[in-house]
Amino acid sequence: MSGAGPFDGAPSHRVGELVLTVLDADGRPLADSVVTVEQCRHAFAFGNIGFDLVRLVGGPDPDGADGVEAFGGTRGLALDQVAGPYLNLFNTATLPFYWGRYEPRRGRPDTERLARTARWLAERGVTVKGHPLVWHTVEPPWLLDLPLDGVERVLRARIAALAGGFAGLVDVWDAINEAVIMPVFTNGKSAISRLAWTRGRIAMVRTAFAEARAANPAATLVLNDFDLTSAYECLIEGVLEAGVTVDAIGLQTHMHKGFRGEEYLQRTLDRFARFGLPLHLTESTLVSGHLMPREIEDLNDYRIGHWPSTPEGEARQADEIVRHYRCLVGHPAVQAITYWGLSDDGSWLGAPTGLLRADGTRKPAYAALEGLIKGEWWLPPTELRTDPGGRVAVRGFCGDYTVTAGGRTVSFALGRENADRAVRLPG
Amino acid sequence: MSGAGPFDGAPSHRVGELVLTVLDADGRPLADSVVTVEQCRHAFAFGNIGFDLVRLVGGPDPDGADGVEAFGGTRGLALDQVAGPYLNLFNTATLPFYWGRYEPRRGRPDTERLARTARWLAERGVTVKGHPLVWHTVEPPWLLDLPLDGVERVLRARIAALAGGFAGLVDVWDAINEAVIMPVFTNGKSAISRLAWTRGRIAMVRTAFAEARAANPAATLVLNDFDLTSAYECLIEGVLEAGVTVDAIGLQTHMHKGFRGEEYLQRTLDRFARFGLPLHLTESTLVSGHLMPREIEDLNDYRIGHWPSTPEGEARQADEIVRHYRCLVGHPAVQAITYWGLSDDGSWLGAPTGLLRADGTRKPAYAALEGLIKGEWWLPPTELRTDPGGRVAVRGFCGDYTVTAGGRTVSFALGRENADRAVRLPG
Repeated sequence: MSGAGPFDGAPSHRVGELVLTVLDADGRPLADSVVTVEQCRHAFAFGNIGFDLVRLVGGPDPDGADGVEAFGGTRGLALDQVAGPYLNLFNTATLPFYWGRYEPRRGRPDTERLARTARWLAERGVTVKGHPLVWHTVEPPWLLDLPLDGVERVLRARIAALAGGFAGLVDVWDAINEAVIMPVFTNGKSAISRLAWTRGRIAMVRTAFAEARAANPAATLVLNDFDLTSAYECLIEGVLEAGVTVDAIGLQTHMHKGFRGEEYLQRTLDRFARFGLPLHLTESTLVSGHLMPREIEDLNDYRIGHWPSTPEGEARQADEIVRHYRCLVGHPAVQAITYWGLSDDGSWLGAPTGLLRADGTRKPAYAALEGLIKGEWWLPPTELRTDPGGRVAVRGFCGDYTVTAGGRTVSFALGRENADRAVRLPG
Repeated sequence: MSGAGPFDGAPSHRVGELVLTVLDADGRPLADSVVTVEQCRHAFAFGNIGFDLVRLVGGPDPDGADGVEAFGGTRGLALDQVAGPYLNLFNTATLPFYWGRYEPRRGRPDTERLARTARWLAERGVTVKGHPLVWHTVEPPWLLDLPLDGVERVLRARIAALAGGFAGLVDVWDAINEAVIMPVFTNGKSAISRLAWTRGRIAMVRTAFAEARAANPAATLVLNDFDLTSAYECLIEGVLEAGVTVDAIGLQTHMHKGFRGEEYLQRTLDRFARFGLPLHLTESTLVSGHLMPREIEDLNDYRIGHWPSTPEGEARQADEIVRHYRCLVGHPAVQAITYWGLSDDGSWLGAPTGLLRADGTRKPAYAALEGLIKGEWWLPPTELRTDPGGRVAVRGFCGDYTVTAGGRTVSFALGRENADRAVRLPG
């Protein structure tokens, strides 16, 4: 019996071990044979936004969405320039359901286009996440005209329609985004912010979770915020005290002002891991050009015509993305990391935060991340010899695997805790 | 019938009106007579710390308190230099119950000295408030040695002993101080902080309020914090959702780095008034010297040998104290303002934040504040003539009043809503 998987330096909480008995089509142990074991998918959610795909797969923007902030989406790249690098690294995609873009004309939601995109991703093994059900930014203009009760009514209807309508296709949602600042947000007019001021933050969170849960009981519902100070801790504690079931705590880390470093990340993860819930790093960015000035408070306020990717910036980004991912994957509470954008073309704020340049060529950060996700943390096709009982020992990052012998393949899953198991090759 | 009280520019929510029928000792209306109406006390809590008095009235510090931070307390002034200016302006006193100073030797609390001081104040018409039942700073050193369950046990016992033991004498408490930073406090070792990290903020708040409420059901229990960001809002919302009855929200405004201005104050008061609870401005300071540099995060970290009061600083402080108090008294939700320190002698951080200089002489800020509390907002002895039915109209800041005629005096209270009332002069 030989073993696969040199993961000795990997975080032990990510690695599973299993003695697998390979049976032939007749159910007899495949003794003393060469088999090929390989990993097909990570259990860990390595995500990116799939905003590029909405136009490339789903079709053109609906009427009225023009000029509404989209937070990402290529204008110049073709599907084949995006799909390959995307599917090579990412098993999870965040799709945009910003209300102001999703339903710019009341009663005419962009359902079909998003469903088409979600299906395209699901067919390629990508878990689709929706973002966000409730937020105070990018509202449809017609919402501002409604009285508060009306705002709450259509908000509840929207949540139910999305969570329910997309159930089975989109089963992970940022149920509410940035609730900490929601009632006191002043950078723009917002009916949702007005509602939050009157009802309170916890009431808004409860509304989002209750409606989404009722519409899709199987959904993973995430509380998501950029505010990683004590304010968010206090909100989470209050939400949990109020009896709301939160499936994961979402932490944004847009690092346009610079990488925050391992010490900060570790401490921050520890602070939020205290609640005993999975942590999702929902929005991570690192720039490969100059940094945004420290004094900018709302990242949205920094708009410059041209923000170039530079060779030094790209080297720094590649170094930092490895440090960032190592730190996060190294923390047992983290279940997901979503990078915010594949290429610089159409990136949020025009920042060079992509893993591809605007022309689609790969930056060093892409290769560096690939070196982790598909390299150091990945079991490539590996030949092993079964023992006289047909057994091989498999060791690797938790996820989906296959074993192949004589041209026949069977799948198995590798988790943290595995009972020894037999798999039977097809006939 | 003539009327008293030129309070036309005053905040209407502070002013009461009443038609008072004055009866003689036999119960007959005192018709067409000159009576003197005067205010004796404000309903609004104009407070200051009474830390100076603990030594001057209560006696010397207990064993083991030497060198433990006291946050204020004169060393050089005599009781008669303190008592006059204090009692002239303040009707509410905050007394220190910092655990590390109150019980530096386990089982030997400083009860008698504090009780003596509280009684001295109460006998002079001053409402006594205790500060704080739970805090993570100024802990007794012996607390650090206990296991977490032990810390919680002695903490609960302390709360019950203080709130219960002082009931009737101290019926207002900062039940818990600075819970927002409590679990993540790193500027010093703290058993309470460790407990908060494990139990959570809301659990700490619940413990403080539950023990204090049980020990003194009549107490006014205040949640107090210096963090006036969204974090505190989130904490308050969570605490209320968790079913804790909070009697008042305490807001600290130590302004060593400069007066925060009316716009900030108004917005902040509005944000915290959303919860429908009274607001207590528990800790206000303004310096009459140079300002602390903006970059200092924890005020406690700024320690300089000599921090002088200057003529320009004193003029600025006098101007700002008027603006500060006008703004706070002008907000209907505010019920109390406590200034933090009477004189510069022994002031917290050695800052020139007193209303008296270190030698006991009055700064312009004292006179300015007196001009409000005992001037613009105060009804001095005022002669009025009753009508044939013995009636006079009284208008003034809510509080306690007397009416005097023929050398005989009777008291009455003036609230926001007053039914017309008769008072009978003693025989």
